[in-house]
Amino acid sequence: MALYECSLTRMTDKIETMSKFGDAGHGGVTRYTLSPEDGQAREEFRKRMKSIGAEIEIDDVANMYATLPGSDPDAKRIVMASHTDSVRNGGNYDGILGVMSAMEVLETVVENNIPHKHPLTAMVWTNEEGSLYPPAMMVSGIVCYDYLPENVKGKFKFEDMMKSKSVLDSDVTFGDALDKSIYKGDKKNRLSRKNYKCMFEIHNEQGPILEDAGKNVGIVDCVLGMFNYRLRFFGQSVHAGTFPMDKRQDALFAASQVICYLHEEIDKLGHPELVYTTGEIVCHPNVHTVVPDDVDFCIDCRHESAELREKVLEIVKGCADKEWAGCKCEVEKMWNRDTVYWDKTLFSYVKEAAEETGISHEVLHSGAGHDAQFASYMLPTTMIFVQSKDGLSHCEPEFSSAEHCTEGTTILLNAVLKADAE
Amino acid sequence: MALYECSLTRMTDKIETMSKFGDAGHGGVTRYTLSPEDGQAREEFRKRMKSIGAEIEIDDVANMYATLPGSDPDAKRIVMASHTDSVRNGGNYDGILGVMSAMEVLETVVENNIPHKHPLTAMVWTNEEGSLYPPAMMVSGIVCYDYLPENVKGKFKFEDMMKSKSVLDSDVTFGDALDKSIYKGDKKNRLSRKNYKCMFEIHNEQGPILEDAGKNVGIVDCVLGMFNYRLRFFGQSVHAGTFPMDKRQDALFAASQVICYLHEEIDKLGHPELVYTTGEIVCHPNVHTVVPDDVDFCIDCRHESAELREKVLEIVKGCADKEWAGCKCEVEKMWNRDTVYWDKTLFSYVKEAAEETGISHEVLHSGAGHDAQFASYMLPTTMIFVQSKDGLSHCEPEFSSAEHCTEGTTILLNAVLKADAE
Repeated sequence: MALYECSLTRMTDKIETMSKFGDAGHGGVTRYTLSPEDGQAREEFRKRMKSIGAEIEIDDVANMYATLPGSDPDAKRIVMASHTDSVRNGGNYDGILGVMSAMEVLETVVENNIPHKHPLTAMVWTNEEGSLYPPAMMVSGIVCYDYLPENVKGKFKFEDMMKSKSVLDSDVTFGDALDKSIYKGDKKNRLSRKNYKCMFEIHNEQGPILEDAGKNVGIVDCVLGMFNYRLRFFGQSVHAGTFPMDKRQDALFAASQVICYLHEEIDKLGHPELVYTTGEIVCHPNVHTVVPDDVDFCIDCRHESAELREKVLEIVKGCADKEWAGCKCEVEKMWNRDTVYWDKTLFSYVKEAAEETGISHEVLHSGAGHDAQFASYMLPTTMIFVQSKDGLSHCEPEFSSAEHCTEGTTILLNAVLKADAE
Repeated sequence: MALYECSLTRMTDKIETMSKFGDAGHGGVTRYTLSPEDGQAREEFRKRMKSIGAEIEIDDVANMYATLPGSDPDAKRIVMASHTDSVRNGGNYDGILGVMSAMEVLETVVENNIPHKHPLTAMVWTNEEGSLYPPAMMVSGIVCYDYLPENVKGKFKFEDMMKSKSVLDSDVTFGDALDKSIYKGDKKNRLSRKNYKCMFEIHNEQGPILEDAGKNVGIVDCVLGMFNYRLRFFGQSVHAGTFPMDKRQDALFAASQVICYLHEEIDKLGHPELVYTTGEIVCHPNVHTVVPDDVDFCIDCRHESAELREKVLEIVKGCADKEWAGCKCEVEKMWNRDTVYWDKTLFSYVKEAAEETGISHEVLHSGAGHDAQFASYMLPTTMIFVQSKDGLSHCEPEFSSAEHCTEGTTILLNAVLKADAE
């Protein structure tokens, strides 16, 4: 099979152009979904895709599809998809890189007149970040709803999603924004099992593993399973100046002890690739002259192995068996998910394409969630990662070199052609 | 010298009546300064004091003074003062107990026709809590301004205080509330060295020391010296799912380690009567999927001995000498104050009155700040505490028995008469 190469010049131009839409002034962007800035990125997508002869469709939740017809009129579409929206003060790669890569594949196919049986579609997902209208991965949750596992489904009911309030203006809902948008199209255009064969997504890694290994591109085998639990501590709120230490029930001291205890006990399991995070803490009344009576924090834990996650969970749950600094502890499950493995055939196409093109690569897991994860319940799906500088993401210094982005896209193109040739 | 006794029946009636003004529905009150509820308490004060023939005066910052003339026309006034305002969902004793006790002393003097040379004044301080218009002790800060230590003064400039914004409505300032109030009187009526001889304040203990010791009334010798420092931790904000543990700089883990370290090291000093509190923590970005990059908390420490406070401070400052969980630590002074000793003569009058009346009592320190503390820079001042149930205060379950309140007031009355007889 012939190998094809994408264009560094064209990729660089796309990165430079898209980075202007929502420029937040410190090297990155703020580009909320369906905002004017998001509209600029979507129009750039429409303009460039129309100019190479792709047909543009929009569905009822503002997802955009640009399709090049294939030689077989009965063949289903192969889709490459990611999102144009960003977090507040986000970077120039998260999401938009996957859209630019999909565009670049179509542009390379047209420029080189590459034969293909299946229609090839570059797709823009709406509202992946959920930064303005929570939750994250909202629209892939809506579109893939019928295929989602029962424990995930409940979060993404269409009616509920339409009522999601803007974090900046509680009078505006996601449904309002959609109604006012020029990107509200027809439900029949939605991604579906009937019309689509499989899906690919390129994303920046958002971690330091590739950079540390000196590899440019990641061949992703799965999205790690995870759990999120909340630990609550119940003490007594008393005056900082008048209440003796030995009679206190200090909920913040209790929470601090447990955060240290969790690090100690989980690290003893001896799995350096396991990740766990206590990122959020709430302290009541949070006044400098009052001993806190009510503190909670959450723990997020991710690993491929269900057995190891279970061992960590035992440690977490065990915290409720005793008192900490005189405070009771309760442990509550917020959510969990199993490890989602990408389609083995698509994964092998990506791996072969990486080996055949000779591009520096490595197999790795995804620790973060992506739209592709929900899509994988509907269609065979896989992902490709591009090296992130310093592992940074969701911040303005987020960076992936145009060279690495183009290399990842070259692998994507050749993997798509393998899927096309099946 | 004759001993006099206050009336349990009258005190009980005052407690029951005042507890209705701002009733918050769970046994306590919300009675912000200059609110309609505060107005009800002030009118009750005015009505009862006028009915016994006291003269009512109001100063320019809404402090109220009810005065019974003494037999010596040249004698300065002896004042008993506290506040009618409460915190949100506060109790029926903090502040108002001191006002009711002052009223009860005057009522007992009139009822028993007790001879006294000096005019006797019951006083209501405005805005001690600062719950609606910060800071706390605002109006005693204004009235005693010229006498305050330099490191305290800056916080209480008259113009700044008038601009203090309501925490419920940033369009309203304390100055606006004062202008609209019927309690804005004449500056010449302010508490002063010229017209006042000395001050007493009764307050509920707000701690469990008297209850634990089985004593009803506390003879207070000082307000503890204190310091408040802020510890800040600087880490790196990275994705919870993609960033390996050994490369993280987790500012919340760092802060938790230091909270535990402070407890361990300070407790080693072996002073169980020392109190220190980490009541407030701020975590950024405080998102469950992001490792925190910026966390700070404050430590409030109180003890009579400057030397011991200095030893604790060395431990606190030493936290900045090393890294915690890969994070830098900075230590910043917020404020401090020296121990304020009450006037030794007034203290001895209170102690003698307690001994002579045979009321159960104990000498103790005050860990909390009170208006009397600022007044003590202007006038000889002292305080009396009444036992608090379970040490609770600034909450609706706050409770002191009417019997103990009356006993404390009987001590106050006899101490005032000793000061009068000087």
